[in-house]
Amino acid sequence: MADAKIRLCVKHDLAAGNSVPLDRDQANYLFNVMRLGVGAHILLINSRDGEFLAEVVDAGKRRGLLTVLSQTKPLQMPPDLWLLFAPIKKARTDFIVEKAAEMGAARICPVKTDYANSDRIRQDKLQAHAMEAAEQCGGTYVPEVAEITKLQTVLDDWPSDRSLMFCDEALAGEAHGLAKAKPGKWAILIGPEGGFSDAEREALSRMAQSLPISLGPRILRADTAAVAALTVWQQALGDWV
Amino acid sequence: MADAKIRLCVKHDLAAGNSVPLDRDQANYLFNVMRLGVGAHILLINSRDGEFLAEVVDAGKRRGLLTVLSQTKPLQMPPDLWLLFAPIKKARTDFIVEKAAEMGAARICPVKTDYANSDRIRQDKLQAHAMEAAEQCGGTYVPEVAEITKLQTVLDDWPSDRSLMFCDEALAGEAHGLAKAKPGKWAILIGPEGGFSDAEREALSRMAQSLPISLGPRILRADTAAVAALTVWQQALGDWV
Repeated sequence: MADAKIRLCVKHDLAAGNSVPLDRDQANYLFNVMRLGVGAHILLINSRDGEFLAEVVDAGKRRGLLTVLSQTKPLQMPPDLWLLFAPIKKARTDFIVEKAAEMGAARICPVKTDYANSDRIRQDKLQAHAMEAAEQCGGTYVPEVAEITKLQTVLDDWPSDRSLMFCDEALAGEAHGLAKAKPGKWAILIGPEGGFSDAEREALSRMAQSLPISLGPRILRADTAAVAALTVWQQALGDWV
Repeated sequence: MADAKIRLCVKHDLAAGNSVPLDRDQANYLFNVMRLGVGAHILLINSRDGEFLAEVVDAGKRRGLLTVLSQTKPLQMPPDLWLLFAPIKKARTDFIVEKAAEMGAARICPVKTDYANSDRIRQDKLQAHAMEAAEQCGGTYVPEVAEITKLQTVLDDWPSDRSLMFCDEALAGEAHGLAKAKPGKWAILIGPEGGFSDAEREALSRMAQSLPISLGPRILRADTAAVAALTVWQQALGDWV
């Protein structure tokens, strides 16, 4: 992979000829960690304009400047898919966010369930994880990580035009039902490791938009279930088809 | 989950009335870490006889004895599916083994590819990870973790009756082709993070048993690709259907 280039997500608009100043962390990464210098080429994304080739024109220890050369990929929006999950241990929560970005979720929504072990997240850190995953996986879009919200609140305000694929471990081994599902706006809800409460299960079963599915005969950890559910959805209704 | 019981994988035969002595680590886990005592019930698996309820009849600091009461689940063998992958960083290698066990692979085969970063594994540690994952996920079978072998050697000796689903990141975005695939003996090969060498790619393309598939338009990390590929296979040909 001799031509593999570093990909960096920036906030600035990307168009040929634009200048992109780097912040201290970005300059440190490019010039100290990766040892790039003036004239080096990297790829830029910003979640809006696609992917662009850029050249380093100033390389300092704490600052730097890039010039945008040309577009290398158009913006490819992921499908309009949200991933809802109850945060678990830190490493596995980080993992779920990374995987959701790689697998092409558009929005990542941590939810607090009645039996959840963890109800605090560092939204800024998780957003940074999503950005790094987008940089790595060749995507041009960084999914937004929402602040944590109570699942009951999310379900009470659920948009009428968004379907909800609800991964129910109580269904393990039974047939799943995405075959007849229609494309459009969707969300995936991963069952929390402590299970859903009766009230949550009741709210989910009342929703006309919700479709319970099974992820096979074994009980999956939440992080495994996230990747498996995203695969099932992407294959049936998303951008893998 | 008040009735959730600890599940333990043991080496002994399981049948009603059998005695199962515990080793030091198992006794420490049950009686010191989990604070069980005489009379407590746990579940046992051994990869051969299914799942059994057992009762603690002796609980020491370094030893213990269980009596097997009754079968709670028959043995459910996973499909005859191998997962081949090139070991990466330790945490992600551990993760792949855990996920393969949860997702129902029967055999986990680390392979050394030409461009791999890592060619050493601790087979015993990985086998222990597979066992813990089987204990957690409710399965009755622990996949075997093989010693690491050179990919070229594995391909040279490839059994004629085993199909190989080969996840090729060079195909990202193109249609995958499991729809017409036939059930039977299979293996999944996850592309290494450094990519395949030309020699490896050539060997794979020569094999009549190999079927390249795509895992969507983004480049997945090896650990994400493992779960996604296992999902694709289990849904099309495995025990999720």
